[in-house]
Amino acid sequence: MHIAIVGAAGMIGRKLTARLVADGTLAGQAITRLTLVDVVEPPLWPAFSGKLDASALDISEPGQARGIVATRPDVVFHLAAIVSGEAELDFEKGYGINLEGTRALFEAIRLAHLEDSYRPCVVFTSSIAVFGAPLPDIIPDDFNLTPLTSYGTQKAMGELLLADYTRRGFIDGIGIRLPTICVRPGKPNKAASGFFSGIIREPLAGQKAVLPVPDSIRHWHASPRSAVGFLLHAASIDLQPLGSRRSLTMPGVSASVGEQIEALRSIAGEAAVNLIRREPDELVLRIVEGWPRAFAAERATSLGFKAETSFDEIIRVHIEDEMEGRIG
Amino acid sequence: MHIAIVGAAGMIGRKLTARLVADGTLAGQAITRLTLVDVVEPPLWPAFSGKLDASALDISEPGQARGIVATRPDVVFHLAAIVSGEAELDFEKGYGINLEGTRALFEAIRLAHLEDSYRPCVVFTSSIAVFGAPLPDIIPDDFNLTPLTSYGTQKAMGELLLADYTRRGFIDGIGIRLPTICVRPGKPNKAASGFFSGIIREPLAGQKAVLPVPDSIRHWHASPRSAVGFLLHAASIDLQPLGSRRSLTMPGVSASVGEQIEALRSIAGEAAVNLIRREPDELVLRIVEGWPRAFAAERATSLGFKAETSFDEIIRVHIEDEMEGRIG
Repeated sequence: MHIAIVGAAGMIGRKLTARLVADGTLAGQAITRLTLVDVVEPPLWPAFSGKLDASALDISEPGQARGIVATRPDVVFHLAAIVSGEAELDFEKGYGINLEGTRALFEAIRLAHLEDSYRPCVVFTSSIAVFGAPLPDIIPDDFNLTPLTSYGTQKAMGELLLADYTRRGFIDGIGIRLPTICVRPGKPNKAASGFFSGIIREPLAGQKAVLPVPDSIRHWHASPRSAVGFLLHAASIDLQPLGSRRSLTMPGVSASVGEQIEALRSIAGEAAVNLIRREPDELVLRIVEGWPRAFAAERATSLGFKAETSFDEIIRVHIEDEMEGRIG
Repeated sequence: MHIAIVGAAGMIGRKLTARLVADGTLAGQAITRLTLVDVVEPPLWPAFSGKLDASALDISEPGQARGIVATRPDVVFHLAAIVSGEAELDFEKGYGINLEGTRALFEAIRLAHLEDSYRPCVVFTSSIAVFGAPLPDIIPDDFNLTPLTSYGTQKAMGELLLADYTRRGFIDGIGIRLPTICVRPGKPNKAASGFFSGIIREPLAGQKAVLPVPDSIRHWHASPRSAVGFLLHAASIDLQPLGSRRSLTMPGVSASVGEQIEALRSIAGEAAVNLIRREPDELVLRIVEGWPRAFAAERATSLGFKAETSFDEIIRVHIEDEMEGRIG
């Protein structure tokens, strides 16, 4: 099996690659080839015994996506995206990558399909940012696409393309609406949701963290480990039962910022909590308060997608996967 | 007031222009300038006393949309589209005009906004084809975007763009989800919905008509006169109350093909009905059976949008507007 990962240098892309390399198989088939692309050179994986190509390219530039498709991967994970905060600040860049890049990738696949009936499985990472206020407390699977950010708009447009390209037979597509990934390891990125991770990650490492929103803000979370699990599961199941509605909201944990802080307190103590400094930020609050608080996620759950069941568990996954099991 | 109509040579575009020329005003303001564009040269309107520019151009070609925006119209009616049947048969042309053309127009406006804070009212003609099966008998205003055609996908993507460009302050946008327009005058076009008009228009003119679907197919209709009324009303009301959800399903008449035929019988008699020949067409049936049957249309109704209230009325409007009040 040949797997391509578009956006392979990002946090999720690297974790997904590591897991594929470690497993050696996907859906019971041996992985013989990996094609890794990103706007920066993706890391190499010496532990992988099959053929590996890693290259830096921008899928929104003419011809670049065709290069990926020329190798006819069986599965394409499309993770490449300009994150929410950056897509809000840089309108052209957001539409360039998130809309035009996605369309260029799908178009390259369609043109290959016209040549030789190529039809890969495409796993598209969408986001719960396709939903915006007013929202019910628990959002049903068939809720209207109502984004309130350019990022959410671009992801919703990607979902629509994915469904149409699937319906036309060019791809076998599934859209995965990721919860906010928490706790993100490493440095903060430009996502407006970054603080949800920061207020856990930094105090666990003995560092100060900034909280730009009130404790009452409730949101929908899953760990990086769960995100990788969603992607692998999406590429492993029969997609026929999805019918024409190809994007699924993933399961997660609904937690308020206050509940996040309580979970931190129970695991790392008062000293960790005291490292959180409240600094209200109107731009972040305006983006985040239109965001979802909780989902039913019944379709995904019934198809076997699994996430954590408490915020304590999300913190423990971070300590296990990123801190070698020790708080430091 | 300066009004631009993109798609001014089409059936709705011509009727809209005729009405604007006849009225001389929109929302109480005198119309001093009309800019009419289409892929074919739009007709001239000698009765119009203001400045009139009519030109043939393709908005999806680089720079063409900027030419329209350079004249800074106060209101832009965006009617240009590849219809459903053609967008289904010609994938590239459909995306080229319906998605890229719409985006090019909005981008041209955004770039003008960056120059001088230009922010026109944009009336975008969407379609009830943004909704696809499984559908409830009466579709609520907040139903999920679930298109089952490339045309519906492109219109849904246009709605998302319209909302985002409005939210960012580049336009003051409203999306009008038109019912199937019935009775369309003139020759059949490539819309999959064409037969809904054909089975009325042809028999009223003493001509044979082909019916490709069963009598049980139920659908949502409004007259061309109502469509023009929706567009004028959309450009006349305060759009602030729409909030972030900028596209509205228009009111209409829910009628089955059987009910359409009964209305024809009551107005034009048995001889007219006998001109309808049943010729099942699987492609048309497959497209149409995923289509909506009826809508609540509460938001639009509460904002003052009005359509016919019976299919008899729709037929009478056709006889008045297209047949000088006489059958035959």
